[in-house]
Amino acid sequence: MNDTRRAVLDALAEGPVTGPALADRLDVSRAAVWKHVEALRDAGFDVDSVDDGYVLAGVPDYGGPAVELGLDAPFGVEYHDAVPSTNDRARELAADGARDVVVLADRQTGGRGRRGREWSSPSGGVWASLVLRPDLPPARVPLLTLAAAVAVTDAAREAGVDAAIKWPNDVVVPDEDSERGGRKLAGVLTEMEGEASQVSWVVVGTGVNVNVDPGDLEGDATSIRAEAGNVSRRVFVQRVLERFDELRADTDGVLDAWRERAATIGQRVRVDLGEETVEGEAVDVTEHGALVVDTGDSDGSDDDGSSERVVHSGDCQHLRPA
Amino acid sequence: MNDTRRAVLDALAEGPVTGPALADRLDVSRAAVWKHVEALRDAGFDVDSVDDGYVLAGVPDYGGPAVELGLDAPFGVEYHDAVPSTNDRARELAADGARDVVVLADRQTGGRGRRGREWSSPSGGVWASLVLRPDLPPARVPLLTLAAAVAVTDAAREAGVDAAIKWPNDVVVPDEDSERGGRKLAGVLTEMEGEASQVSWVVVGTGVNVNVDPGDLEGDATSIRAEAGNVSRRVFVQRVLERFDELRADTDGVLDAWRERAATIGQRVRVDLGEETVEGEAVDVTEHGALVVDTGDSDGSDDDGSSERVVHSGDCQHLRPA
Repeated sequence: MNDTRRAVLDALAEGPVTGPALADRLDVSRAAVWKHVEALRDAGFDVDSVDDGYVLAGVPDYGGPAVELGLDAPFGVEYHDAVPSTNDRARELAADGARDVVVLADRQTGGRGRRGREWSSPSGGVWASLVLRPDLPPARVPLLTLAAAVAVTDAAREAGVDAAIKWPNDVVVPDEDSERGGRKLAGVLTEMEGEASQVSWVVVGTGVNVNVDPGDLEGDATSIRAEAGNVSRRVFVQRVLERFDELRADTDGVLDAWRERAATIGQRVRVDLGEETVEGEAVDVTEHGALVVDTGDSDGSDDDGSSERVVHSGDCQHLRPA
Repeated sequence: MNDTRRAVLDALAEGPVTGPALADRLDVSRAAVWKHVEALRDAGFDVDSVDDGYVLAGVPDYGGPAVELGLDAPFGVEYHDAVPSTNDRARELAADGARDVVVLADRQTGGRGRRGREWSSPSGGVWASLVLRPDLPPARVPLLTLAAAVAVTDAAREAGVDAAIKWPNDVVVPDEDSERGGRKLAGVLTEMEGEASQVSWVVVGTGVNVNVDPGDLEGDATSIRAEAGNVSRRVFVQRVLERFDELRADTDGVLDAWRERAATIGQRVRVDLGEETVEGEAVDVTEHGALVVDTGDSDGSDDDGSSERVVHSGDCQHLRPA
């Protein structure tokens, strides 16, 4: 949504305003105001014409302008009914120089998880990818993954769901009967490009099973709908974006917030690194997004004779207590 | 160079071999052997026809096949007389799925340094960009920058030049009279793309002022020619690639090798971080490529009250002892 249309929408939301007054305030022609009002009606906004002028009588359930309206974070929204992958579209925008844009879709037709895995993305979920250009070395980009997981967890908890973070990049509803320690509610996929000491861009993608049925999803998944009933996706994604925006400005606070919400810390875990498996108690996360696992084996599990292993990437299973 | 042509070249280099024997050994037609021999002659190789068959009598000074011949590292070479930027071409190849390819050019018409800065790249230098697909998180990619700096330093020292590494990514000839602590001999520019916990590709670009005149370069630069006379670029780039290949397999050894060759460690430095400047003694480098600077100020230069600051990226000036 361009700046003028966003200003028109904000003015309509504040109360009745006449066309001429609005034209005057925004320093555009009356015809331009009328054009923006018509465009907002086309986008699903209910704009009434009353004696005092225009007034906003209804907001669409979802979509770009609806999410931008009242959003307390400096992100523009590009909305699609369907797109192969919001991350792929965000990468295109990033390569073209965009910053602080969210690509949002009602559904993805080729959604991706980590390492190119398929990610079910039916209509009703929140599939959102943020284009960022932070002043960070790649080594600190995992903090943005952690921040997104915290933001999604907090939005889910506000919706009444008992959500927690599972390393490295999932939000789950913990469940001891589940083979992997919980039912998957959301995932984060962070991608980047840049120099070794400074990123050019980062795309933080979040996929949240909001108003969808677990039966329409792969694997041991759950959804906001299944746990607590349907919610407004507009409000949900706004909360995620606002919380993320707070956290990215406080990278030191992200680690503590993550630790507080992490189901993984304190658990016995098995991490599959591909060529080997590390098993032990998950004791901490580092600023590089790595999990610290105490293997209990002080002979040679690490070079310095400590029993702690630092693992950057892998599939993590929560084991039942021995 | 394709595998068969490389095999033909290797066989010619080993001594006289007849066309029929070669066809037999490589399981191709005699016509194919003849075609490869002609192509090698076109590429500047001197292939004599003697009674015993073919024999290699001369190798071109530089170029893709010449660098591949006798190279003891698993890299293919794509050679250009001129290219805007070897890193840009390598990024294209990387995006297409290439791995372990070196893009080499006699000169670059739009060579880049860190943060988009111009990099003089006249004919006669070694402008080389490696396409790699390592199993590394982005946080550990700076090790490849360090490895490349070590490889270039060792090749320069073998050529008789008193080279040393200057953090973050330069190789210099130390000189106390130089404003920045040394005259620049080479630079490394590492770029990457991938997920936050696993890179997709890395391009390690090295620009070395080999057989060029410092007067043709920007700033306070020097060259192998100026310090020790002309060398074979073919041999020089082979040594860089071979040394890099050794180091990348031993990431733990890279840090020690870098420390041993670093002019920066033990120096008083001033690092310009853009928004602030850090001054103190450079005491170490981390596995994330960051410089550890002891500011001597134990009040508040770091959160934990230590006087050490860890800086990931910036312009580093070597100061004269106080």
